Amino acid sequence: MKRIRFKEQTGSTRVGTYQDGMIDAAGRTYDVDDVDVLPPCSPSKIVCVGRNYAKHAEERGNDVPDRPLLFLKPPNTLAGHDDTIRVPEGKERIDHEAELCVVISEQCRNVSAENAEDVIEGYTCMNDVSNRDDQDKETNWVRGKAFDNSAPLGPVLASPDELPADAYVRTRVNGELRQDGSLEQLIFPIPELIEEITTYLTLEPGDVIATGTPDGVDRLNDGDEVEIEVEGVGTLSHRVVQ
Amino acid sequence: MKRIRFKEQTGSTRVGTYQDGMIDAAGRTYDVDDVDVLPPCSPSKIVCVGRNYAKHAEERGNDVPDRPLLFLKPPNTLAGHDDTIRVPEGKERIDHEAELCVVISEQCRNVSAENAEDVIEGYTCMNDVSNRDDQDKETNWVRGKAFDNSAPLGPVLASPDELPADAYVRTRVNGELRQDGSLEQLIFPIPELIEEITTYLTLEPGDVIATGTPDGVDRLNDGDEVEIEVEGVGTLSHRVVQ
Repeated sequence: MKRIRFKEQTGSTRVGTYQDGMIDAAGRTYDVDDVDVLPPCSPSKIVCVGRNYAKHAEERGNDVPDRPLLFLKPPNTLAGHDDTIRVPEGKERIDHEAELCVVISEQCRNVSAENAEDVIEGYTCMNDVSNRDDQDKETNWVRGKAFDNSAPLGPVLASPDELPADAYVRTRVNGELRQDGSLEQLIFPIPELIEEITTYLTLEPGDVIATGTPDGVDRLNDGDEVEIEVEGVGTLSHRVVQ
Repeated sequence: MKRIRFKEQTGSTRVGTYQDGMIDAAGRTYDVDDVDVLPPCSPSKIVCVGRNYAKHAEERGNDVPDRPLLFLKPPNTLAGHDDTIRVPEGKERIDHEAELCVVISEQCRNVSAENAEDVIEGYTCMNDVSNRDDQDKETNWVRGKAFDNSAPLGPVLASPDELPADAYVRTRVNGELRQDGSLEQLIFPIPELIEEITTYLTLEPGDVIATGTPDGVDRLNDGDEVEIEVEGVGTLSHRVVQ
């Protein structure tokens, strides 16, 4: 089952079920192309995991960490499916990073890996848009990772049964395949991430854990059309302007 | 003028004005000791500034940064005046860091330093509680600075006219003075912080900028009674349990 949040033409926000380009919501049917798709949840925070695929750590010149590398994206970073995102001006290198995201179902703390499934509402896709000019110079990645629109999220929230264990995670830019990884390559699997994060932080319903990106990250340019696809979940599209 | 948010005995949340231990709210008068004081605002994010006092950078063995060192505390970090905060277990070193905080009045982006006053609602106090065991080992300070209850905030939101330009920023633990700095020592003054942060991030009404801590940071132990005082703003008190 795939849930979608959207704004209909009157401006009302609706939540419906999505299948094959059509939405059922509150007794009506909508064509997805006629509505403004919103991020599928409203996180109070996005907890991101860096260097969670060995080949990506390598391509950025980093060691594989011995425990999850965590960083944060606050709500100002959100953008929706089919949005045009404006990235910081005058930077040499703004990169795409395709990621599978976990959406949390309930307020939780101290969740063990073995009980982690109990707090997973489902999955969505994110582009962890990264401003390398600043990221590579700062102690915490705020200018580098927490700027406005640096977290396009969506298009749907897919229930856990929709996600294959070896789902591919892909980026295409202007139709060209740039990243093509598999969830089987995750260094720290999702239950371990949930245990580690909730040892320190309470997660809220709708909070998001971004599980890291495979190798193949590359530069985004003005006017690029980006597609982030996770097998079984969907394809998040957006445009970039600088 | 000092604004205070609190829960009255019926459970309703109220906002009133505070003076000399008494609160006026919605036509009634309350003794502050009879109510549950809440953080004075509901930030979607707390943008913190590290190493913004030279002597504190020195005591932690760091250089003074050439631009503001930014990091984030999400809403799970909030605690209120007179709360008992539970810090992560089994850590050698959990420290206090007294800070003056700016509370933002309106949604804003790209605010120049010269217009920064226009987006300041007022000021409050924060203890930037810091888990050094993890902070000193991680790339981004999430376990170190974003754990639950790591941002006691309050007790009031003081209007800008209440804050002297050279206000002292102090910590007392069990009555003993531990930190005693002055806002005149800030490396990056508040208008520059607002300009730098809003170059990258939209700030929302109620968002908080924590301006950094003076030297004298030290260990907190189980049962400690902490007071964070900013001259002209007030004294934020809380207890620590481990």
